Amino acid sequence: MAKADWTLTSIMARRGVGAKRKPAVHDLTEARQGKYHYTIGPYSDPVLTVAPGDRIRVETRDAFEGAIRTERDKPSKRLRLPFVNPQNGPIMIEGAEPGDAIAVHIESMAPRGENPHGTCCMIPEFGALTGTALTATLNAPLPEIVRKVPIEGKSVRWSDRVTLPYAPHIGTLSTSPEIDSINTLTPDAHGGNMDLPDMGPGSITYLPVRAPGARLFIGDAHACQGDGEVCGTAVEYASLTTIRVDLIKGWTLDWPRLEREEFIMTIGSARPLEDAARIAYRELVRWMAADYGFDQWDAYMMLSQCGRVRLGNFVDPKYTVGAAISKNYLQS
Amino acid sequence: MAKADWTLTSIMARRGVGAKRKPAVHDLTEARQGKYHYTIGPYSDPVLTVAPGDRIRVETRDAFEGAIRTERDKPSKRLRLPFVNPQNGPIMIEGAEPGDAIAVHIESMAPRGENPHGTCCMIPEFGALTGTALTATLNAPLPEIVRKVPIEGKSVRWSDRVTLPYAPHIGTLSTSPEIDSINTLTPDAHGGNMDLPDMGPGSITYLPVRAPGARLFIGDAHACQGDGEVCGTAVEYASLTTIRVDLIKGWTLDWPRLEREEFIMTIGSARPLEDAARIAYRELVRWMAADYGFDQWDAYMMLSQCGRVRLGNFVDPKYTVGAAISKNYLQS
Amino acid sequence: MAKADWTLTSIMARRGVGAKRKPAVHDLTEARQGKYHYTIGPYSDPVLTVAPGDRIRVETRDAFEGAIRTERDKPSKRLRLPFVNPQNGPIMIEGAEPGDAIAVHIESMAPRGENPHGTCCMIPEFGALTGTALTATLNAPLPEIVRKVPIEGKSVRWSDRVTLPYAPHIGTLSTSPEIDSINTLTPDAHGGNMDLPDMGPGSITYLPVRAPGARLFIGDAHACQGDGEVCGTAVEYASLTTIRVDLIKGWTLDWPRLEREEFIMTIGSARPLEDAARIAYRELVRWMAADYGFDQWDAYMMLSQCGRVRLGNFVDPKYTVGAAISKNYLQS
Amino acid sequence: MAKADWTLTSIMARRGVGAKRKPAVHDLTEARQGKYHYTIGPYSDPVLTVAPGDRIRVETRDAFEGAIRTERDKPSKRLRLPFVNPQNGPIMIEGAEPGDAIAVHIESMAPRGENPHGTCCMIPEFGALTGTALTATLNAPLPEIVRKVPIEGKSVRWSDRVTLPYAPHIGTLSTSPEIDSINTLTPDAHGGNMDLPDMGPGSITYLPVRAPGARLFIGDAHACQGDGEVCGTAVEYASLTTIRVDLIKGWTLDWPRLEREEFIMTIGSARPLEDAARIAYRELVRWMAADYGFDQWDAYMMLSQCGRVRLGNFVDPKYTVGAAISKNYLQS
Repeated sequence: MAKADWTLTSIMARRGVGAKRKPAVHDLTEARQGKYHYTIGPYSDPVLTVAPGDRIRVETRDAFEGAIRTERDKPSKRLRLPFVNPQNGPIMIEGAEPGDAIAVHIESMAPRGENPHGTCCMIPEFGALTGTALTATLNAPLPEIVRKVPIEGKSVRWSDRVTLPYAPHIGTLSTSPEIDSINTLTPDAHGGNMDLPDMGPGSITYLPVRAPGARLFIGDAHACQGDGEVCGTAVEYASLTTIRVDLIKGWTLDWPRLEREEFIMTIGSARPLEDAARIAYRELVRWMAADYGFDQWDAYMMLSQCGRVRLGNFVDPKYTVGAAISKNYLQS
Repeated sequence: MAKADWTLTSIMARRGVGAKRKPAVHDLTEARQGKYHYTIGPYSDPVLTVAPGDRIRVETRDAFEGAIRTERDKPSKRLRLPFVNPQNGPIMIEGAEPGDAIAVHIESMAPRGENPHGTCCMIPEFGALTGTALTATLNAPLPEIVRKVPIEGKSVRWSDRVTLPYAPHIGTLSTSPEIDSINTLTPDAHGGNMDLPDMGPGSITYLPVRAPGARLFIGDAHACQGDGEVCGTAVEYASLTTIRVDLIKGWTLDWPRLEREEFIMTIGSARPLEDAARIAYRELVRWMAADYGFDQWDAYMMLSQCGRVRLGNFVDPKYTVGAAISKNYLQS
Repeated sequence: MAKADWTLTSIMARRGVGAKRKPAVHDLTEARQGKYHYTIGPYSDPVLTVAPGDRIRVETRDAFEGAIRTERDKPSKRLRLPFVNPQNGPIMIEGAEPGDAIAVHIESMAPRGENPHGTCCMIPEFGALTGTALTATLNAPLPEIVRKVPIEGKSVRWSDRVTLPYAPHIGTLSTSPEIDSINTLTPDAHGGNMDLPDMGPGSITYLPVRAPGARLFIGDAHACQGDGEVCGTAVEYASLTTIRVDLIKGWTLDWPRLEREEFIMTIGSARPLEDAARIAYRELVRWMAADYGFDQWDAYMMLSQCGRVRLGNFVDPKYTVGAAISKNYLQS
Repeated sequence: MAKADWTLTSIMARRGVGAKRKPAVHDLTEARQGKYHYTIGPYSDPVLTVAPGDRIRVETRDAFEGAIRTERDKPSKRLRLPFVNPQNGPIMIEGAEPGDAIAVHIESMAPRGENPHGTCCMIPEFGALTGTALTATLNAPLPEIVRKVPIEGKSVRWSDRVTLPYAPHIGTLSTSPEIDSINTLTPDAHGGNMDLPDMGPGSITYLPVRAPGARLFIGDAHACQGDGEVCGTAVEYASLTTIRVDLIKGWTLDWPRLEREEFIMTIGSARPLEDAARIAYRELVRWMAADYGFDQWDAYMMLSQCGRVRLGNFVDPKYTVGAAISKNYLQS
């Protein structure tokens, strides 16, 4: 099977210290998680310790932690910042030390519960096409609207008129910063709320280790999402997400990276949006030079002909851009 | 044939006043063009007048107007701003009046000359990963490098190691502003240097008419280009580009739009980059509401689940973003 | 008199070719001007030709060209873009050639007419604290409000409660670009709508010459203005503005510069706002190195200790920043 | 004495619960501080608890924590991020609870040690006129240069040629976020590295309380600084800074505010820079409406005529802008 094949030659498979181990399987249920987290840092107590190569089945909560129950709920009444986007973790990876990277292979994502629904809503002063707390305006806010969206097998029933494909991915995936602790709405060099639709089953994300044990956090499952997540939310749902994690010693990353069967991708998060794109493309030039034998100027000029960009988060305190190159062009 | 089929039901086919006419064919050769243009406005003399529905075969020059002949040429010696990115035109479309739109269907693009080569170069203080005239720094500029790239049938021979697909498109397509005249490096609400890889054969671009006759300008053919054109240039080449133009009366556009078989797209150009994306997505919300029967908030929230973004130009005085939605989701 | 003194040692006095000439005086009345201009470029007919060192008394119109007559007028009904911010000119300066600079000393500004009033208004989707055509949002626009403000001698009677000092300046001052023509709302490397409160009586502005004769445009008088002109408009009024112009041969400027008794200033206009500030500060480093004998790194580090920034326009298609250094620190 | 006078009618004097108390005096020496902090949050142990109205004499370290000892030191060798800009604190203010504000009156700042010197340096990829970690470029970095600058009484001896006035201020002043912990280079809604030259002796800063006890952090003394701190550093020095703190119950601030004898100021920190300015101006409009009896639209339009902007930090992960209005215009 193609998907199985490519992961056997992934960076994770080639460099992960646990790649050949028979994975132990861990269940990070809601009960085991207990309190979910709203800030990503080195100050919280671990909920789980795993060995490189292990598999973890994670019960994620939706980004509103279930507080928006019906289409009549007002987000402004039910939510209070910064207590949104709850995260599972921190999960400690044995042997992970600052300067290493961890790999997170998302193997599968399924909705939890009977008759699963996702939730999408418009929240005052939140989203791409409204004044916000940062792009501060005096305009009246947009209306608050909640949509409860059935997730039925391979489909997301947006409306009577439109059915979208179920295209799940993880919105927020992080390791801990060295000394800071960053709210779960903000993407940055540690990962965070990147909201990249590529980060679903069939993807491997590589994250920098900056605190002992890496301290992996995961959450914010989306049943589908457009580029930019413009209204501020995706089809947010409670998931059972199965990941396999591994450890790559001595691979020091400045920013997160992602691998799929067809491409490798670097991820930058910043404002203004051009800085996110600059970061991602510079990382990609450097990666091509360091690991694939390209001269840096050849890589730069060549990406000008074949680089591909994916807009992630563009509604939160920082914006996310992925820059990718097809593996076809990396062969030597 | 699929391509033929979809254009028969395109917006251009349904609303263009010349759609049913048998097209006259015009040749806009280098000789007929005479002087190429470096600024897009109402002050230049027309080179051609066509009827809606007509076909035009345009001999475009490369973005350097052929001044970079070998890999030993220094761009800083051979080029002088603002005299780059030469444009054919202005072409007058009969009957076009302010408040209308014109449609430009790109039918085919072929390299001109024997043994065709494209040119890619790094120009001092130009590109996405360097200080520039606007993102002003005191760093020494990057080196000047020129690449001459063979275009061989369906392939672009980037290097001994890498061959890219020939994926031609038009970088710069414009109608005239009402009273301004804008250099050919800058994209804006009139079109301009958008550098969108989607704008190749199989695409129809819709541009606002703001001056009598529309005053169509076209140029800047690329044999291929990555999202963002990060080093500042694509594989720039001299092309024979065949377009068919039409006129849609009373369709008043604030920004350019694009249609392909699979999707419709709105195009915004601005800085910072998030403003380009905001423009594109707002235009798409409005288009869905005006022409496809969506409530604006439903459109906004739905694009948050299925909108797709293409990064165009992100090296020039303004940046370009296209926001698209699959036609699958537009059916009523 | 102090003001008279300093101008005798200004750059204009030292380098202007007409500094020692007895100035001829020209009156550019409304009648002589005839049609005012809304775009700055090389394509309009000169209204006046002057010699370096001449004095010109200019009758400027207010930014709305008088169309907003009462506080009950709706700006959205009375104004139509791009036909706002009317400019006098172009004025040809004899002997001015590309590569030179012109100096514009604003000597005095007085309101015209009996019982003079200025006009300030809130225009839909225009201003710093609202979604705009570029920072595109879906929020409802702010209300339209018009204020008619008496200008009484040295005072501007803002309201029953607040009286502001009359602090006049010119909002828009330009030479022509080489081949582009730029609407009068936009500041850029040619000057344009900079809206810098420093550009009043007692200031000398230096502008690059890029078209034969320089083609000077002037307009947009403000009776007072805060930094940024945040609501989108100042106290806009019809003025009699007296300027003296001169020509500095061979002084090639990339961006406008300004001199007052106490400081020299460089002016950058761009988006995002940090790029405007980068441009201004880089120009100032370069100026200090070229004309005042500073090592560039010494200048850069020293401006980090004593540079001063003035925010100009931050409501229009580009934003303006002035960076200044006290003349005290320039003495050798 | 004028300075004494105005503080007696300051907001702090009128609303602070400790204003009438006889202040206890606390010495926060280097020894008492022990470990300095590089991240601002709720996770560190208090070093001192004071009552509202108390005075604290703080021994601040310079931003490099003394690691740059001579002009021959290389910053890149001596510094390691995020361990720069060390902060004293956290200082607990008795009775401070989330929803309150604290006031910090800077009474005096003096250099410490014999023969005091400040340090200014250029650090690779740090500063306004260079590519950085966020505005990522491929250009070679600027040179590393260190300047040791004598501070002599009222003067800062920049060079043989230039002497600047001693104009001390605090670069970094913070309360704790609710659950995040933010590195000391970044300004944000909690204060942080704002680098506003107005924040010196004679100023009162008001900061939001978001964690019990407020958790005040202070550091980053500058002997002088230009607007924007463009090369990335000011004249950084070790100071004895005397502050008086007070508590204002129930004054809930979204962003820091500042008061001096002549004006009140709101402070926004964000990227791009226009968002920092938008935040500051929106806060000022809201403050004028809430506490000074202005209609919001009147305040907005009036600030367009008399608002003043100060550029603070524009070299760090976020940029800072202060927006001010003269107290003259606030009287009713």
